[in-house]
Amino acid sequence: MSTAFKGRDPHLVRRVTCIGAGPIGAGWAAYFLAQGYQVTSYIHDPGEETSLRQVIEGAWSSLTEMGLREGASMDNLTVCSDLASAVADADFIQESAPEMLPLKQALYKQLGDWVANDVVIASSTSGMRMTDIQTDCKTAERTVVGHPFNPPYLLPLVEVVGGERTAAEAVDWAAEFYRIAGKAPLVLKKEIPGFIATRLQEAVWREALHMISNDEASVADIDYAIVNGPGPRWAIMGPCLIYHLGGGEGGMKYCLEQFGPALKLPWSRLDAPELTPELTKKLIDGANEAAGGRDYSTLNRQRDAGLIAIHKARADIFGRD
Amino acid sequence: MSTAFKGRDPHLVRRVTCIGAGPIGAGWAAYFLAQGYQVTSYIHDPGEETSLRQVIEGAWSSLTEMGLREGASMDNLTVCSDLASAVADADFIQESAPEMLPLKQALYKQLGDWVANDVVIASSTSGMRMTDIQTDCKTAERTVVGHPFNPPYLLPLVEVVGGERTAAEAVDWAAEFYRIAGKAPLVLKKEIPGFIATRLQEAVWREALHMISNDEASVADIDYAIVNGPGPRWAIMGPCLIYHLGGGEGGMKYCLEQFGPALKLPWSRLDAPELTPELTKKLIDGANEAAGGRDYSTLNRQRDAGLIAIHKARADIFGRD
Repeated sequence: MSTAFKGRDPHLVRRVTCIGAGPIGAGWAAYFLAQGYQVTSYIHDPGEETSLRQVIEGAWSSLTEMGLREGASMDNLTVCSDLASAVADADFIQESAPEMLPLKQALYKQLGDWVANDVVIASSTSGMRMTDIQTDCKTAERTVVGHPFNPPYLLPLVEVVGGERTAAEAVDWAAEFYRIAGKAPLVLKKEIPGFIATRLQEAVWREALHMISNDEASVADIDYAIVNGPGPRWAIMGPCLIYHLGGGEGGMKYCLEQFGPALKLPWSRLDAPELTPELTKKLIDGANEAAGGRDYSTLNRQRDAGLIAIHKARADIFGRD
Repeated sequence: MSTAFKGRDPHLVRRVTCIGAGPIGAGWAAYFLAQGYQVTSYIHDPGEETSLRQVIEGAWSSLTEMGLREGASMDNLTVCSDLASAVADADFIQESAPEMLPLKQALYKQLGDWVANDVVIASSTSGMRMTDIQTDCKTAERTVVGHPFNPPYLLPLVEVVGGERTAAEAVDWAAEFYRIAGKAPLVLKKEIPGFIATRLQEAVWREALHMISNDEASVADIDYAIVNGPGPRWAIMGPCLIYHLGGGEGGMKYCLEQFGPALKLPWSRLDAPELTPELTKKLIDGANEAAGGRDYSTLNRQRDAGLIAIHKARADIFGRD
């Protein structure tokens, strides 16, 4: 299906071009600058330069607190509103144009012609498939999704997945480059709409919308429930490890025996899949792998330490009740 | 439907009885001890005393770090395996028996007879309706759900809702008591199975199970996606305020215009409701209320400060890559 791809050495990337001046495009520019790269920001309209620089300056104090790489400077930013010259000498392209498929398709057609063939082009799209974005691109083998989470200068996750015409080497290259650049890349096994994190987030959002729509909960109730309940746990451990921990010494296996039947209850508008022996095995094996040899009391202690830190941070930021 | 209820002054509660020796029951006991209450833990089997005390001792260092109330001591714990005497002089009952409806129904029948009529009985059930639990209870007017999040000694949320036979005064009493005891009570507008936070959590869990079942993601992928992506945000701000912030200066209104159509995309197995004008208005009004006069840049700064604190806490706890 896809042409092979041979990229530049990801350790030698020096110049990154960020397309887009919105919070995501500007956030990426700030991040790459903080990692010591030369960054070119392409803006569609020269009038966007002010807001672009505002986002970058706003992010800079956070990035400084997180730790700048050697040589990192906001002076390494070039702003350009000519696409051809913006991408001319880039070693990597991070595209964060508006989320409109025809616009992205036209953009990838141009980028496919203008960007050197050994350079990966990654899209920040939060849910579109690269298969759809790359349709008119002549060099689609090096186009991938590289989906960050807002703010991209602080949250580490980048979901990486190719389209039907993407070369496997381009996906590997992007994951390796993001890792070198200090990100937490997650390479998807399959191209699914919404990827992994957006799907999980969207499940929460949709259930919340149902409750708000039915007057079962207000906007304030939803937010209050999350930040005082499951939210802090999810900052420390994912839902599977939390479930494993919730089972005490018995772990995931005990939990599935105990709470498996609750999957049949109408506890969300989303129907759950059958807990087949295959799924059960995947869950138990996966949870044990996630625990990685840490016993129950170690996991418990780590979660508690994280929750205390979050509690203190929130009190500092928002004040105490 | 329900008999009126007149409770004791919630400020004068001194003795709390916690039913159950599992992580939830024991966690509640630890929490109430740390808040300076006299606590009686009812254990079904005297053999459970060791594990009960282990959980309480394990929680105590976390509770000490969070700050003990004056007079708080583990010495204020009485362990008892006779239910009638365990509840005899209680000012409040927190029931955390196993999640089996017939068991809870039989228990509430007994509690209804044995617990003084001006004492509220709250269930830690994570999703059952009080209407179903209270069926055989003669004094159902003072039975409510008081659903905590694990670990109950650290996470503030308690979802409070009555059943059909519960008096409104008992729900109010429970919310007021939890507030006095340092918790974050959320009173539900309607009795819905799974309440609010469990429904949101269950939506994530079900979507995760579908992805794991279909080999679209592994257990590790799910957890990695959450803790590096949406998780840390949800520890700081709920999904609605995060969405509002994601819209930049345009807030929720801009977001709904921009991303509303994505609700039609198959980004989770859960169908989203129609974005009717009514729902749109609730969302925009609710988000503005949540922002509470804080402008975009203030919200942005607060979120970033929280994310940095979580990043640092996680590095301290788990080590850096």
